[in-house]
Amino acid sequence: MRSAASSSEVKGESIEDTLETMHSYTDMIIIRHKDDNIAEKAAYMFNNSSKPIPIINAGSGPFEHPTQSLLDAYTIFRAFESKVKNKTIAVIGDLKRGRAVRSLVYILKNFEGTRLLFISPPELSIPGDIKDFLVKNNMPFEEHNSVEKGFRKADVLYFTRIQDEYDTHHESLGIDYTGFYLKKEDLPQLKKNAIIMHPLPRRNEISSDVDNDSRAWYWKQEINGLWMRTAMIAHLFKEDGYILNYR
Amino acid sequence: MRSAASSSEVKGESIEDTLETMHSYTDMIIIRHKDDNIAEKAAYMFNNSSKPIPIINAGSGPFEHPTQSLLDAYTIFRAFESKVKNKTIAVIGDLKRGRAVRSLVYILKNFEGTRLLFISPPELSIPGDIKDFLVKNNMPFEEHNSVEKGFRKADVLYFTRIQDEYDTHHESLGIDYTGFYLKKEDLPQLKKNAIIMHPLPRRNEISSDVDNDSRAWYWKQEINGLWMRTAMIAHLFKEDGYILNYR
Amino acid sequence: MRSAASSSEVKGESIEDTLETMHSYTDMIIIRHKDDNIAEKAAYMFNNSSKPIPIINAGSGPFEHPTQSLLDAYTIFRAFESKVKNKTIAVIGDLKRGRAVRSLVYILKNFEGTRLLFISPPELSIPGDIKDFLVKNNMPFEEHNSVEKGFRKADVLYFTRIQDEYDTHHESLGIDYTGFYLKKEDLPQLKKNAIIMHPLPRRNEISSDVDNDSRAWYWKQEINGLWMRTAMIAHLFKEDGYILNYR
Repeated sequence: MRSAASSSEVKGESIEDTLETMHSYTDMIIIRHKDDNIAEKAAYMFNNSSKPIPIINAGSGPFEHPTQSLLDAYTIFRAFESKVKNKTIAVIGDLKRGRAVRSLVYILKNFEGTRLLFISPPELSIPGDIKDFLVKNNMPFEEHNSVEKGFRKADVLYFTRIQDEYDTHHESLGIDYTGFYLKKEDLPQLKKNAIIMHPLPRRNEISSDVDNDSRAWYWKQEINGLWMRTAMIAHLFKEDGYILNYR
Repeated sequence: MRSAASSSEVKGESIEDTLETMHSYTDMIIIRHKDDNIAEKAAYMFNNSSKPIPIINAGSGPFEHPTQSLLDAYTIFRAFESKVKNKTIAVIGDLKRGRAVRSLVYILKNFEGTRLLFISPPELSIPGDIKDFLVKNNMPFEEHNSVEKGFRKADVLYFTRIQDEYDTHHESLGIDYTGFYLKKEDLPQLKKNAIIMHPLPRRNEISSDVDNDSRAWYWKQEINGLWMRTAMIAHLFKEDGYILNYR
Repeated sequence: MRSAASSSEVKGESIEDTLETMHSYTDMIIIRHKDDNIAEKAAYMFNNSSKPIPIINAGSGPFEHPTQSLLDAYTIFRAFESKVKNKTIAVIGDLKRGRAVRSLVYILKNFEGTRLLFISPPELSIPGDIKDFLVKNNMPFEEHNSVEKGFRKADVLYFTRIQDEYDTHHESLGIDYTGFYLKKEDLPQLKKNAIIMHPLPRRNEISSDVDNDSRAWYWKQEINGLWMRTAMIAHLFKEDGYILNYR
């Protein structure tokens, strides 16, 4: 693990040289980077090299988080016992800057009949390119600024934290986010078989006294992150058998 | 290992959620934390869970340091060839804020006939709750502001560093600590079979030219930290046999 | 790995005590330190102890970098198919503060007939003690402030980054370093069998479009760092056979 602060970047090394060095030392590169295109750049650099190692995008700034979306999809898949069809999925919170949200929408295309409810403060609504993606793929969606509709209609309620680390001038401070919280008293409004998800860490989006409700799936989702990422690495190293026999 | 600076705490996660996440990923949690009750909180949280993993308190601010006290007790036990009875133990230095000191007193209760000499600047004397503990357990003790009495009477001399990391207004700067040092010229005053201990790191509490004296046990104490902690982890994982056969 | 910031140094521990602690816990110490004599101090401390573990100097401030010089010499050895005789080696850039440069000169003494060209800005020329070393060992050398001569005469061109981390008053900002770069258009001037080296990380000393030239050996040099250091550790642990059978 190489953090930005201790890397050769501080000595003025280019990102290409840093990637080249990692490539020479390793059999896989897992990249979490604030920029959008570093993982892609690495894949492009090494794809035709004599050592085409796997590159995993482990989160690129506010843009993409594909491994999160894999564990999210797997969690939904398990919650509905492999039958994910015609589900209404409410995505709630900071839809503008949440990379988990963007990657979730992309992967949900694989579940037939998915309908999306985007619920956010007006300042943090889902970006236009995501809506273009949905239109192009015939995926119906609605946008709302109030969470109540989601409580009643959703099969999946996916809460997200306000991503104020991407603030440029503390603009999050001026946004009323409290309307996008789930409290224990809201639970009776939810469908009996709904599931509640959150990529974690949370602040106050989901009250901790919701944790014991049978519909709270975020801790199962979190441990699925361990299994999914383990499976992914094993798969890329062609060690699927190992995983299948494990546990 | 998760440091406070890089953890999800900076994203606003509660300590309970951080513990829950660690619990889901691990088979044991070792916690060093500035607060007193985090290890206890973790034990309470997981004790009745489906996965009741061991929690080790590896130091809680100025309050407790139980693994240090285990290695300290083990060192005394070895130094006196398992016969630790009626020993006079001088604890010297910052008795007010030294977590090692507090935990040491608690564990010494297990050695029959232990007498304690607390030797410190007046500003850093042993707290009242520790004295209450001693009274309640019929353990005799004296308090002094001068180290000479300890030199002559003690079987164990346990030196400690001034804990100025707990200063709120640089109050340590106003304390004369030099009287609580051990120098080579002091050695003739010590009992022939006394042992000198220090939880380390030291500053000037023990002069480095004392290191070669046969009564200097602090480096043996330090390496006992490795053995004791290894043994503890192995024991908790029910691997005692492994330890017994090692070395 | 123990960084200065998180070590016991911040609690006021002496470097001797820190080394003593590491010695008690480990079977080998690898030291990168800003001071010149810490690795030597450790070797001196433990050489006559009951546990004389190997100490590796992994870079001492601007003074020495012996493991780098081993991989550099190995790279030259491989490039010329074990016949390193009567070679002209141009060392280019910050010769005053580059620890890799100093250690390289020392090790080149082992190659018969080596001639050195030192090419640097006047402010960053090779130190007098290195020139004394060369004179004493009958190693011919020249000093230049322009890189062109090196391009034509050198069998090895060893470029280095300006070591501005050792600036005391941003003095590097006043130095014109651009004349000590290698660009693609310079390549025709180089000998057919010359090799281009750089200890990395680089800034602009070697243009990235030089990377594909067959004379560019710095990436091979870089991966040699992995093999050389692995071999060194294995050798010190008397595991040479393992290395010989690997790959």
